[in-house]
Amino acid sequence: MSELRKDMIVNRWVIISPRRGKRPHDFTAETKPCIQPGPCAFCPTHEHETGPETLAFRDGDKTDGPCWRVRVVENKYPAVSVDMEPSDGLCKSDCGIFEGCTMPGFGSHEVVIETPDHDSTFAQLPVSQIEEILKAYQSRIEHLRQDTRFKFVQVFKNHGNAAGASMSHSHSQIIALPIVTRAMEEDIAGSKSYFDANERCVLCDILYQDTCLNKDRLIDETPVAITICPYAPRFPYETWLIPRSHNSNFGTVPAHEIKGLAELIKTTLLKMDEAFDHPPFNFMLHTAPLRDCTDLPYYHWYMRIVPHLITLAGFELGSDCHINPVAPEDAARVLRETTLTSD
Amino acid sequence: MSELRKDMIVNRWVIISPRRGKRPHDFTAETKPCIQPGPCAFCPTHEHETGPETLAFRDGDKTDGPCWRVRVVENKYPAVSVDMEPSDGLCKSDCGIFEGCTMPGFGSHEVVIETPDHDSTFAQLPVSQIEEILKAYQSRIEHLRQDTRFKFVQVFKNHGNAAGASMSHSHSQIIALPIVTRAMEEDIAGSKSYFDANERCVLCDILYQDTCLNKDRLIDETPVAITICPYAPRFPYETWLIPRSHNSNFGTVPAHEIKGLAELIKTTLLKMDEAFDHPPFNFMLHTAPLRDCTDLPYYHWYMRIVPHLITLAGFELGSDCHINPVAPEDAARVLRETTLTSD
Repeated sequence: MSELRKDMIVNRWVIISPRRGKRPHDFTAETKPCIQPGPCAFCPTHEHETGPETLAFRDGDKTDGPCWRVRVVENKYPAVSVDMEPSDGLCKSDCGIFEGCTMPGFGSHEVVIETPDHDSTFAQLPVSQIEEILKAYQSRIEHLRQDTRFKFVQVFKNHGNAAGASMSHSHSQIIALPIVTRAMEEDIAGSKSYFDANERCVLCDILYQDTCLNKDRLIDETPVAITICPYAPRFPYETWLIPRSHNSNFGTVPAHEIKGLAELIKTTLLKMDEAFDHPPFNFMLHTAPLRDCTDLPYYHWYMRIVPHLITLAGFELGSDCHINPVAPEDAARVLRETTLTSD
Repeated sequence: MSELRKDMIVNRWVIISPRRGKRPHDFTAETKPCIQPGPCAFCPTHEHETGPETLAFRDGDKTDGPCWRVRVVENKYPAVSVDMEPSDGLCKSDCGIFEGCTMPGFGSHEVVIETPDHDSTFAQLPVSQIEEILKAYQSRIEHLRQDTRFKFVQVFKNHGNAAGASMSHSHSQIIALPIVTRAMEEDIAGSKSYFDANERCVLCDILYQDTCLNKDRLIDETPVAITICPYAPRFPYETWLIPRSHNSNFGTVPAHEIKGLAELIKTTLLKMDEAFDHPPFNFMLHTAPLRDCTDLPYYHWYMRIVPHLITLAGFELGSDCHINPVAPEDAARVLRETTLTSD
């Protein structure tokens, strides 16, 4: 029996329709990632083929040189560019009723090259390597915060062609913008509204509900964080990693928690690899906007991990109401019961 | 040079990033639809393999019999079902902080079988056939409006596997729900806000702007409607068909306008077929909610046609801010200059 469920933070309905449901093995044919042979521009000794380096963890100190473990570079094909000012004059398309609706494509677009090894996937990396990647995210978030023109930063990963990756060498991306995007505005507004009504953070409450009151949507829990399938997910097997410590800003998570987070991210991705035979996936870090938004009592950073198993179709594109063929309780059970046979 | 542009109706930013731009021929490799051989459950003499018929235009009067031109049936694998009540008791998942966030999956989910011919695509159908399909949409919208439990209806089409179609025989779908979806709520609220400030309908103003003040985004215009690429589109080559007559409800468009609409839809789809070598696509009809929403001065029905050329990736899924690699002015020029070599 299908259900309509409302995401209470942003008031968005989804249709959970398990009668159209699929088990993990039904998805696998659609989900094979594409592997490109190396070496590529992200490989060691090819450093000159990328944009200039903004951060690296390496043995030695030669910028844009070898022996790095994690390397962050400017995207050579950026969606936005720092080579302009957000206050640059109006664009020519900005006239008539659209006056005031455009600004130059100012922003920062970086690539995080997650490993020197061309063939390792994120899930296969050692926990210590994932820790360094998370620390690179933190360092870049806090660096970008220093530039007061930026209001919002999105850290995200596309793995596999079908999930939007154009390079198979393991990497993620960081985009900073002079505006706060609508999804974040709504997330902040909904979280604040819940806090005002209940005097508690909504993700802290979800964490309590899904670990202490009803474990149907719980996948894993560790001393540092939990993974759940959220109550009203838009995508099948969509997974949220929620840290136990309330903190609105990923950039300031203490180092001793980063290791635990790295372990749980690795476990989650390995389970998805096991359940779906190495699917394409995206992960997105949700951290508070950059300006005046540290230490917010009502916002709680979290990470969303979404295996790429379905295509958005006309109903979703028209209504923004997603039809999800797998109930989160079923998805969580599958992932909870997935045992890891390899590392 | 890239730009940030804001959809002024719903206050959603997009990044127009032509430096990542692609010409039509760059997209074609990704876009081939899958054709399944017939006959299938949607073919004549297979009427018993579909759900029961709710409407048909046919020669003769035998329900679920042959000789139909357009046939509307209940979806055999519906996302929502009329076999329950929207007021049915709470689902078991609805407890704790999620109390009040769920209702049974009540709704209507129909399939419009657009032609008896298994191999014809929508764009290849005669204008008279497309007219009948549009009239079938109208008839079903007005019929569903009689059931006061429904508040919202979405008419949409998925063409090609990559755009979400599971059957290649040309068809579209109609889903009616007991809630108004967030996209429609925002569309209505934004349109009303513009009307309150300007005493004019925003789509009437866009129509005037894009036909009389600046034709850069105009694709085609006829006495009945225009097609444009909108100012802040989320998808490359996203096209809006806007009728010249202000009317909030597609269900009451007069018959003499339906023919003109059918002609323009066919032209638009043929141009996309020509430009992108028959891409998968979705179209979505945006018509006002069903309750107390006829003759709204501030809402104007329209149709969105979106060829399926790119994959949504982590940035879009995280931020709801889309990176569009083709400026709408460039997309409109390509489609405006596409000449039709076949029918």
